[in-house]
Amino acid sequence: MKARVHIMLKTGVLDPQGEAVRHALGSLGFDGVNAVRQGKVIELDLADGTDEATVNEMCERLLANTVIESYKVEIL
Amino acid sequence: MKARVHIMLKTGVLDPQGEAVRHALGSLGFDGVNAVRQGKVIELDLADGTDEATVNEMCERLLANTVIESYKVEIL
Repeated sequence: MKARVHIMLKTGVLDPQGEAVRHALGSLGFDGVNAVRQGKVIELDLADGTDEATVNEMCERLLANTVIESYKVEIL
Repeated sequence: MKARVHIMLKTGVLDPQGEAVRHALGSLGFDGVNAVRQGKVIELDLADGTDEATVNEMCERLLANTVIESYKVEIL
């Protein structure tokens, strides 16, 4: 089975990487870019029978820093 | 309007970051993790009326390195 995990900085946490992208898009002439947030996506190829709870535990223990990041698990 | 862009390394391109995550999950006792690929997700808050073609152009010109990365645009 496959799972996809989206990890984004929580709202209110400064995202300098996203801000740099926003600025660069403006420099390239793309107008109307109000905000950019950059996050991570992790695709896991797991043994069959692995449940969503296990993937959540992976996020809590390793993949996400839950102090500043939120995550969303999607089973494919 | 909002758009989300997923950027992943193309199949066959070595992903050392994903490999490190796979190894770390194994060290933490998570068995059955066959493969891990790590990519980026960029959420764009754009002026209304921006079309998908513009977002594709942003990907081609800045967000993705199309030699080694593929991208997928999702209008939210």
